[in-house]
Amino acid sequence: MFRSHNCGELRAAQIESQVTLAGWVHKVRDKGFVTWIDLRDRYGITQLVLDAERTDAALLEQARTLGREFVLQVKGTVIERASKNPNIPTGEIEILVAEMTVLNEALTPPFTIEDDTDGGEDLRMKYRYLDIRRNPVKESLVFRHKVSMEVRKYLSDQGFIDVETPYLIKSTPEGARDFLVPSRMNAGQFYALPQSPQTFKQLLMVGGMDKYFQIVKCFRDEDLRADRQPEFTQIDCEMAFVEQEDILNTFEGLTRHLLKEIKGVEVAAFPRISFDDAMRKYGNDKPDIRFGMEFGELNAVAQHKDFKVFNSAELVVGIAVPGGASYTRKEIDKLIDWVKRPQVGALGMVYVKCNDDGSYKSSVDKFYDQDDLAQWAQATGAQKGDLICVLSGDTNKVRAQLSALRMEMAERLGLRKADEFAPLWVVDFPLLELDEETGHYHAMHHPFTSPKPGQLALLDTDPGAVKANAYDLVLNGNEIGGGSIRIHDKETQAIMFKHLGFSPEEAKAQFGFLMDAFQYGAPPHGGIAFGLDRLVAILGGQETIRDFIAFPKNNSGRDVMIDAPATIDNDQLDELHIALKD
Amino acid sequence: MFRSHNCGELRAAQIESQVTLAGWVHKVRDKGFVTWIDLRDRYGITQLVLDAERTDAALLEQARTLGREFVLQVKGTVIERASKNPNIPTGEIEILVAEMTVLNEALTPPFTIEDDTDGGEDLRMKYRYLDIRRNPVKESLVFRHKVSMEVRKYLSDQGFIDVETPYLIKSTPEGARDFLVPSRMNAGQFYALPQSPQTFKQLLMVGGMDKYFQIVKCFRDEDLRADRQPEFTQIDCEMAFVEQEDILNTFEGLTRHLLKEIKGVEVAAFPRISFDDAMRKYGNDKPDIRFGMEFGELNAVAQHKDFKVFNSAELVVGIAVPGGASYTRKEIDKLIDWVKRPQVGALGMVYVKCNDDGSYKSSVDKFYDQDDLAQWAQATGAQKGDLICVLSGDTNKVRAQLSALRMEMAERLGLRKADEFAPLWVVDFPLLELDEETGHYHAMHHPFTSPKPGQLALLDTDPGAVKANAYDLVLNGNEIGGGSIRIHDKETQAIMFKHLGFSPEEAKAQFGFLMDAFQYGAPPHGGIAFGLDRLVAILGGQETIRDFIAFPKNNSGRDVMIDAPATIDNDQLDELHIALKD
Repeated sequence: MFRSHNCGELRAAQIESQVTLAGWVHKVRDKGFVTWIDLRDRYGITQLVLDAERTDAALLEQARTLGREFVLQVKGTVIERASKNPNIPTGEIEILVAEMTVLNEALTPPFTIEDDTDGGEDLRMKYRYLDIRRNPVKESLVFRHKVSMEVRKYLSDQGFIDVETPYLIKSTPEGARDFLVPSRMNAGQFYALPQSPQTFKQLLMVGGMDKYFQIVKCFRDEDLRADRQPEFTQIDCEMAFVEQEDILNTFEGLTRHLLKEIKGVEVAAFPRISFDDAMRKYGNDKPDIRFGMEFGELNAVAQHKDFKVFNSAELVVGIAVPGGASYTRKEIDKLIDWVKRPQVGALGMVYVKCNDDGSYKSSVDKFYDQDDLAQWAQATGAQKGDLICVLSGDTNKVRAQLSALRMEMAERLGLRKADEFAPLWVVDFPLLELDEETGHYHAMHHPFTSPKPGQLALLDTDPGAVKANAYDLVLNGNEIGGGSIRIHDKETQAIMFKHLGFSPEEAKAQFGFLMDAFQYGAPPHGGIAFGLDRLVAILGGQETIRDFIAFPKNNSGRDVMIDAPATIDNDQLDELHIALKD
Repeated sequence: MFRSHNCGELRAAQIESQVTLAGWVHKVRDKGFVTWIDLRDRYGITQLVLDAERTDAALLEQARTLGREFVLQVKGTVIERASKNPNIPTGEIEILVAEMTVLNEALTPPFTIEDDTDGGEDLRMKYRYLDIRRNPVKESLVFRHKVSMEVRKYLSDQGFIDVETPYLIKSTPEGARDFLVPSRMNAGQFYALPQSPQTFKQLLMVGGMDKYFQIVKCFRDEDLRADRQPEFTQIDCEMAFVEQEDILNTFEGLTRHLLKEIKGVEVAAFPRISFDDAMRKYGNDKPDIRFGMEFGELNAVAQHKDFKVFNSAELVVGIAVPGGASYTRKEIDKLIDWVKRPQVGALGMVYVKCNDDGSYKSSVDKFYDQDDLAQWAQATGAQKGDLICVLSGDTNKVRAQLSALRMEMAERLGLRKADEFAPLWVVDFPLLELDEETGHYHAMHHPFTSPKPGQLALLDTDPGAVKANAYDLVLNGNEIGGGSIRIHDKETQAIMFKHLGFSPEEAKAQFGFLMDAFQYGAPPHGGIAFGLDRLVAILGGQETIRDFIAFPKNNSGRDVMIDAPATIDNDQLDELHIALKD
């Protein structure tokens, strides 16, 4: 046994006990006559003490040679600490050291192992094994473990069965790019790594598994935007003999359970909002509803008043920024510059100050009188002291721009509180999405999503208007889960494939096994998948997922710690029946 | 809601209730005036009844059109069953059907959905989604879920943290062949899929994670022997600040917990046996100790008696087969043929019948008298009525041959009971193994396994004699787990790499990150990995793992259901900077 206790558990009750501890030298303070060492492990920090009066001289000398991050084993007596440290759980005691063994030496780490480190992102990733010693990273990984365990416990208690689906599957042309794995035993053929276990979970429903879940790695070979990873983790679920309502209730239950068990937060029934309403009220299909600032559409009250910019716009829409009337001219100009940044892309911004005396002062006073502006205030819900910000243009673009402004203002006003949780369901998504480049429709969710009952015929006449039995779970402005009721009959699936531009041959080659399966008694079924990395980060009150992943990759898909990917031997290429191409 | 109850939960207490059920038509029995339907789902079977007296004629007519595996929803009343079926939990009741909806039709399945199916292995694999509807497969998957959940619960309660390690890693030359994944973003470079998270779990220990576990898919691109899969699942664990004793105790605890919770079996402290003793007593490093028949070495009592075959042999060794003295001459001849099969490879077998009157009758009576044979009986522990089977030859070969015979005889005698569990630890494995073909040593466990204290110097003089801090957990003749105390200092690791034939440059290129990590304060650590597929199969009392895997691959590494691997588009090859080679 290397230790009798860990570094986080000794208290005043153990005073006088003989103990053995092991851990890392976090800090050494040498005052000549007395040396204190902070010994650290996963569980905490315990102070060791050696002094001229009570400690063997050789031992005291040895203590002075210890460097940061040396691995140490000590035996000693738990004693009461003269100056207690109320900030740490072990702060009432210290260990009077009697024996000390250096289990391993350590080079000086390239950055400090402290909550706030001096190491930059690159250095931290290269030495991730040292970064993990830091509290914020370590706690994030422990937190992730707790969330995973609770998810599994809850779903298992609800009768869900954890079934492992294969990682070496078949490439499909639908969706993102696959990672491929050349087969040695089947020359010229390739496996693909799954983008999700979608077809397998549907086959499990055909197989009568009834309720399935899995916490599973998925893979997408996409150009990585910030905070995306080529491999990511999904909580993947599917249920048979269910309608949308059953799924929403089940996974609202899971989410509520997590919020309560993990965060101690009780939330009311989740609001439900249609995709169309979400776009109208928030310009966004994953609205953050921790705060208001809902969109007010102003076409009816702002158009046809000689202001050409608005008259020629498809949509005029504004939000009321609380307290914004006190902004100086300079501050407002900076805000206008902000919306004109390429990342937002607005051409300009009209504003109205709602003065405390009930009057309005706008940047378009030339075109609108006080009564007009009062109508704007009503439409946006603006109160005295607010600033109404108005954008105009093409509906989709202007909504996205105003959504960006709404989020920015909420951020500046401190309304996006990390410890507040506002989940909601977004429902009634469009079934298809128009690819503006190609003019083709593709599945907004995926090709197995069922249209709303009775809307199948609409596919021929107005495909963009068809709504799907699809739903997203949104938390604090992030989509944390999404799913749908699936098509479970072969005929509907064939119609869908046709509208997605698959020839019958292509559909058969790619999804033949699924369509075959549907002939042998497929039950009605549906499911959902949660992005675990994101869910954990949001529950942990963080914006980025990287510290909730033990060994993340950088934006080029590289693991800089192990230096992967890497070149391989020619023998390996030969065995796989492939060659490099320039 | 498609159902108010599932097909396994209605009992006499619910008689008179109005219920809605959904499931698959398992069987229809039409007696003209009355029709019974067995409706099946994951939870059980409930009998539906329709008859001329109580059921609408159109409904009765509809019931006659139902085919096997149709998906059905029915509403009706729970009534008492006239002839109860004590064999199923719902056997006291049936449902008098009032409404019936066919949710989906079904083609006739290619094999019967029964416990004993008429479908062969190939057909079952092609239609695995139908195979999963069969009780034995479904129950195996549910059983696997229960084992996984218990493993996670136990380890988490013991303070282990579930940390996900990456799947896209770096190829290493050590061990089996890697599956490789070409990188699109890093032209000419490849990721590898992990054969195990070995280096990552060691880095987590360097990172202070203290206790790690993960249930994780691993990948080996090997020519598949029967009952091996290219992707398999490991329970992967690692602990810091431990010695071998700590690991053995912890995972003996886990195994005992599983046996108790899952099988209701209490087992005593696990025996521990050295590798050398296991080979001597059972000819096998994964002995099945549910039964005796330990080896008796006979060199001292059987050599130098004019029997040349024995005199020239390195080892003469036998086992006592209980009750075998009653074998006829013909049966014994068949046994001799069995040991001479190429799979076993013995050149012959000497036998001794231990007669009930205390006399011996052997096939070598010409060379050995009754006193000699009495000594053989003593050495093999043979009792009156037993048959002593003796093989001879080169030590390693003859041990393997006698081990095969021992297992075969136990099987024939019904001593390998599926519901009996006899776990043990095999310890003190050799550190290195001689590759007879190349004459080089390689790591028996893996290159990070530490030698026994004080044996490092032996590496230079007698590498084959060096023992490792390595251990296997063996259950009923199968290795279900194996691990070691790792090397945690850079110097020892460098010595190991040298003896394994890595140049310093090769070692740095492949494992540089691990050796670097060891410079920054690596704690003493060790771990273990269990093969989950095998563990679950053995706990489930089965010999083969395939039915405990939802979607297994065949011996050519193919998934015959989805038809993977498959050819891919040239565009995909181009993007990955590779070309096919003939």
